[in-house]
Amino acid sequence: MLKVGIIGATGYVGAELLRLLLNHPKVKVEAISSVSYEGEEISSIYKNFYGVTNLICENQYEVIKKCDVIYAALPHGLSEEIAELVFKGNKVLIDLGADFRLENEEDYKTWYGKDYKFKDLHKESIYALPEFNRDKIKDSKIIANPGCYPTSIELGLMPLLKNSLIKTDNIICDSKSGATGAGRGLTLKSHYPELNENFSPYGIGSHRHTPEIEECLSKIADEKVQVTFTPHLLPINRGIVSTIYCSPKSKNVNLEKLHKLYSEFYKNEAFINVLPLGETASIKEVKHTNFCNISLHLNHRKDGIIIVSAIDNMIKGAAGQAIQNMNIVFGFEETEGLKLISFGN
Amino acid sequence: MLKVGIIGATGYVGAELLRLLLNHPKVKVEAISSVSYEGEEISSIYKNFYGVTNLICENQYEVIKKCDVIYAALPHGLSEEIAELVFKGNKVLIDLGADFRLENEEDYKTWYGKDYKFKDLHKESIYALPEFNRDKIKDSKIIANPGCYPTSIELGLMPLLKNSLIKTDNIICDSKSGATGAGRGLTLKSHYPELNENFSPYGIGSHRHTPEIEECLSKIADEKVQVTFTPHLLPINRGIVSTIYCSPKSKNVNLEKLHKLYSEFYKNEAFINVLPLGETASIKEVKHTNFCNISLHLNHRKDGIIIVSAIDNMIKGAAGQAIQNMNIVFGFEETEGLKLISFGN
Amino acid sequence: MLKVGIIGATGYVGAELLRLLLNHPKVKVEAISSVSYEGEEISSIYKNFYGVTNLICENQYEVIKKCDVIYAALPHGLSEEIAELVFKGNKVLIDLGADFRLENEEDYKTWYGKDYKFKDLHKESIYALPEFNRDKIKDSKIIANPGCYPTSIELGLMPLLKNSLIKTDNIICDSKSGATGAGRGLTLKSHYPELNENFSPYGIGSHRHTPEIEECLSKIADEKVQVTFTPHLLPINRGIVSTIYCSPKSKNVNLEKLHKLYSEFYKNEAFINVLPLGETASIKEVKHTNFCNISLHLNHRKDGIIIVSAIDNMIKGAAGQAIQNMNIVFGFEETEGLKLISFGN
Amino acid sequence: MLKVGIIGATGYVGAELLRLLLNHPKVKVEAISSVSYEGEEISSIYKNFYGVTNLICENQYEVIKKCDVIYAALPHGLSEEIAELVFKGNKVLIDLGADFRLENEEDYKTWYGKDYKFKDLHKESIYALPEFNRDKIKDSKIIANPGCYPTSIELGLMPLLKNSLIKTDNIICDSKSGATGAGRGLTLKSHYPELNENFSPYGIGSHRHTPEIEECLSKIADEKVQVTFTPHLLPINRGIVSTIYCSPKSKNVNLEKLHKLYSEFYKNEAFINVLPLGETASIKEVKHTNFCNISLHLNHRKDGIIIVSAIDNMIKGAAGQAIQNMNIVFGFEETEGLKLISFGN
Repeated sequence: MLKVGIIGATGYVGAELLRLLLNHPKVKVEAISSVSYEGEEISSIYKNFYGVTNLICENQYEVIKKCDVIYAALPHGLSEEIAELVFKGNKVLIDLGADFRLENEEDYKTWYGKDYKFKDLHKESIYALPEFNRDKIKDSKIIANPGCYPTSIELGLMPLLKNSLIKTDNIICDSKSGATGAGRGLTLKSHYPELNENFSPYGIGSHRHTPEIEECLSKIADEKVQVTFTPHLLPINRGIVSTIYCSPKSKNVNLEKLHKLYSEFYKNEAFINVLPLGETASIKEVKHTNFCNISLHLNHRKDGIIIVSAIDNMIKGAAGQAIQNMNIVFGFEETEGLKLISFGN
Repeated sequence: MLKVGIIGATGYVGAELLRLLLNHPKVKVEAISSVSYEGEEISSIYKNFYGVTNLICENQYEVIKKCDVIYAALPHGLSEEIAELVFKGNKVLIDLGADFRLENEEDYKTWYGKDYKFKDLHKESIYALPEFNRDKIKDSKIIANPGCYPTSIELGLMPLLKNSLIKTDNIICDSKSGATGAGRGLTLKSHYPELNENFSPYGIGSHRHTPEIEECLSKIADEKVQVTFTPHLLPINRGIVSTIYCSPKSKNVNLEKLHKLYSEFYKNEAFINVLPLGETASIKEVKHTNFCNISLHLNHRKDGIIIVSAIDNMIKGAAGQAIQNMNIVFGFEETEGLKLISFGN
Repeated sequence: MLKVGIIGATGYVGAELLRLLLNHPKVKVEAISSVSYEGEEISSIYKNFYGVTNLICENQYEVIKKCDVIYAALPHGLSEEIAELVFKGNKVLIDLGADFRLENEEDYKTWYGKDYKFKDLHKESIYALPEFNRDKIKDSKIIANPGCYPTSIELGLMPLLKNSLIKTDNIICDSKSGATGAGRGLTLKSHYPELNENFSPYGIGSHRHTPEIEECLSKIADEKVQVTFTPHLLPINRGIVSTIYCSPKSKNVNLEKLHKLYSEFYKNEAFINVLPLGETASIKEVKHTNFCNISLHLNHRKDGIIIVSAIDNMIKGAAGQAIQNMNIVFGFEETEGLKLISFGN
Repeated sequence: MLKVGIIGATGYVGAELLRLLLNHPKVKVEAISSVSYEGEEISSIYKNFYGVTNLICENQYEVIKKCDVIYAALPHGLSEEIAELVFKGNKVLIDLGADFRLENEEDYKTWYGKDYKFKDLHKESIYALPEFNRDKIKDSKIIANPGCYPTSIELGLMPLLKNSLIKTDNIICDSKSGATGAGRGLTLKSHYPELNENFSPYGIGSHRHTPEIEECLSKIADEKVQVTFTPHLLPINRGIVSTIYCSPKSKNVNLEKLHKLYSEFYKNEAFINVLPLGETASIKEVKHTNFCNISLHLNHRKDGIIIVSAIDNMIKGAAGQAIQNMNIVFGFEETEGLKLISFGN
């Protein structure tokens, strides 16, 4: 059994990792850590673990020492130091934060207001979107797990961009996410009577996933891709739908051909469902799973393409994709521990 | 007291009209009708009226006979005949359906699959968006109340289009609506366990509000305006947020100037709130009111404008705007019966 | 116009008072206060007031000075001092907190852990449940507005207790409330992802509304009444349903007679709806109104009575009842400012 | 691999069974049936199965023919005929409907309005609540899976009744269930805008789970037990909380002793969590799992016991318990296929 540990186990992403890893047949969760709850049983903080596990929150150095694979689910700026230790120890880090997602350090400075502390480590790290660069992930020891919104958008656009079929100067990405995406920290915005029966965009023109989306899409397209990205907060717990608007380079768009292209492109992917034409991706079917469902549409003039991409922000958008990446690195079946099926409610 | 009546009082829009009109100081609800519930007390169908009113559903001819103003809240195709009778009777019809919204009969045929039966009546009717054409509404007897999505989008774009500041070949309108918009008819889509904790677009490229939006925006702009309109279904009861993406004609967009333009444009409007820069319109503040809240934003490159427009789909998007139109026709204070304040929950 | 003010205007109850009082035809909101937001516009804190009012939060002494009627919506322990000032000033205090609700000071000590500071004031105050003691309210200057749960339970049981029809040693009151009842303060319990799709009792055997319920029911019955009261937190914003279980003294319970008794008892009450037999009170019809809907039932053996009582916790359970009490004190029509109709969504 | 089949696979319970059985390591879902959708792929009806299974709905006779274990998730009155066929074929039926739950045929007639057709079969069947009668389940071929509400109540009361510690003449069971419990059939009550933000009891004094609860509790207590059972409909998808009120026979109730009793009683049960004193059972922790969480409380006078019992109505209240019963019959590990952990959102 592979020994795995979670640093930051008491945030929503950390707790979701724990939930999934406890049922993964090839690993044993050896240690977890939490700054806020060091010394406490995880089952006293997340009571869903009552009767399930007796794990106690330790400090992060114990986790690094005891485990072969270390998951870090931390606010940005806290993973580099961990990466340094893990890398020196010849272990594997799967980072669910933002510290290793951007290759372009200038962008990191601009959007996160910080410099890289361990510049060399960034050369060792890989932005790990399995459906895009599975081969490179295999050989990496610092795995930068993509953000939730970026995952939904990048998977939605990959076949079009790989084939240079759309204009890249301004793709509109209108994304909507459930409330777990905003984390467990208390804010008025996530106070129940404020969010319930409410809906709104936020962070317009300033959300930190923007440079990540543009950098990854540019790599996929092998040319500069610019997006307008607007996130919205949904009054639900889980799930992201991205409605993506793009313009075909050619005037004649054929929806059947497009559908065939996507179906071919993703035919060997266990977690991507290209829905039959006429259907529309929604949160219901992907919730509590590692699936990304994609549906394809045209606008009423048939001159614009609309892609709808749906994931569970906590799974394919975070913990599930992280485990998928671990499965790749260690040569496990890619679906190991991730054979999750949604009921939709 | 003006005698008013409601045809189709047992749909959600009809019941909302009744609720608001019962508290309007200048009118008396004289009669209501319902095909499905003729002869029954409205308080036995909508129990919120228990202890409030004893009105009984009659047939539509009684309503027309007894009232000075007739509201019709019916599926499309059923209002023309009513309009004919009301017009002959020299009374006022406020139609909340689609029959009189489109000036272009070809579009009506294309999108609704029907011809106009009483072509002359359509010359007498007016598409009644008060903030756009209040003066024409005053003199009309067949008032076509705008659709809910169109109201949010048209109010959001009017100042820009009136001043020819944006490109008109493809404005992206990504709209999200609460479930009352889909009506009281039972469908799997609106079955609680299916919609709750779910979210998705629907009717992509085919929603019937599309030609209405394009026709009205084209009138506002005095040139052909093309949109891509995508509605989504929110797991909440009420409210619409439209996130609207457009490209300025000039390269240099100044958000402060834009804000000033909007503030000036709407300064005399009782129901339009142009929010301070830095704030974002949301459903919470407009819910249960006749307000349309608008906020203005730029994308991160500062080369794209994003407008967020929020209304209550049942009030400014239907019953409230219909009453506002009645107030205009009869010379009442425009806010009469509509001094509604949201608590946001 | 009567000059009214609100101390504690930025809590949920205070903001709801403001919302309702702004539309009350006989009063003018002259001043509001908030410790946390002194000097700020209420519309910058509660954005639903944007475009509605320019009131600025002052301190409580300004409110007392400027107004004839002072509403206090504060945590317990803070109203006595205000009452002292208001009473000296020969003005009227309507207190929405707990300080003046209990006649029995021992109970106050036991449940709230404090002594009364101004004992004499308590002789001047009245527990103000209009349907129980309207006459005494008329002559009072310190009005203790009942708690939300107690209102639903006391109104549900009053006809039975007044007529000595049930056993009083252990009435089971199983109550469920929406999340606004827990206020605007941030807690993990009210964090959206925690409360959404969740449900649970809380404060079993220890909720502070217990002595209030027992004291008022005992006065109604003119004998000692004991209850078991269990509150639950519903994942909705507003509304309380109390399901009340009691045992008739006589073996033969006749539901029709019971219904007649209730209907007679409440026939002149504007805000109490005794529902027809066969119907069940629910939150939908009372939400956003000052109504209390009551339905009557028997268990399957016909030897136990079940009463269902539904109110909006923010209106009949707080702000609405406070205004009703003001209307009584000042001889206004009791429904003035409270002609609210629910749409149910 | 054991061949299992589901009759009635397109109801919510049937689909949940399918979801869980597809991941059960000891079984293969060989066939499913549906009257309404015969011939259609399940993935076109429940789109969460898209990309997961290609199973097609057949008719029930095919299911019986092909499988060793047959699950029936049908409305009452339809399982007896199936049981007859399954029994003759020497196979195992796990019935999730009501046909075999009541030993007392008179009660079945009274509450369901029907006679038993195959009386002898009822002698072969067992009411299968594993924590009560695991040994008898082992030897049965007709397994009557308990109802959802009864499961929560019976597990909550078992230790008290087995030890004759409480009065049995009138136990108050106030239960609240999520909307999946009402099934997939369209009704106004489950129409999204009607149920959302609403809450109410239903079926007071007449719910068909009442005789099942009384019969099972009487067997547990070995004396006649009478309850008052009131179900309520929660605006959430899944989960039941039962708040149970009972009176101790002895005056001196000791909560610590009670807790010890429960902890001992259930110490070997994999799916029962007796929560530490001071905690309260809620839906969050049991949702999407086969757990029943139980918490123990006293009222404020310390003379009444309050038990809170929480389950997922679709899992421990239906599909999960049915699989648990199969595991018992076939000697599998009882938790096989049921190692489910809630995230609580």
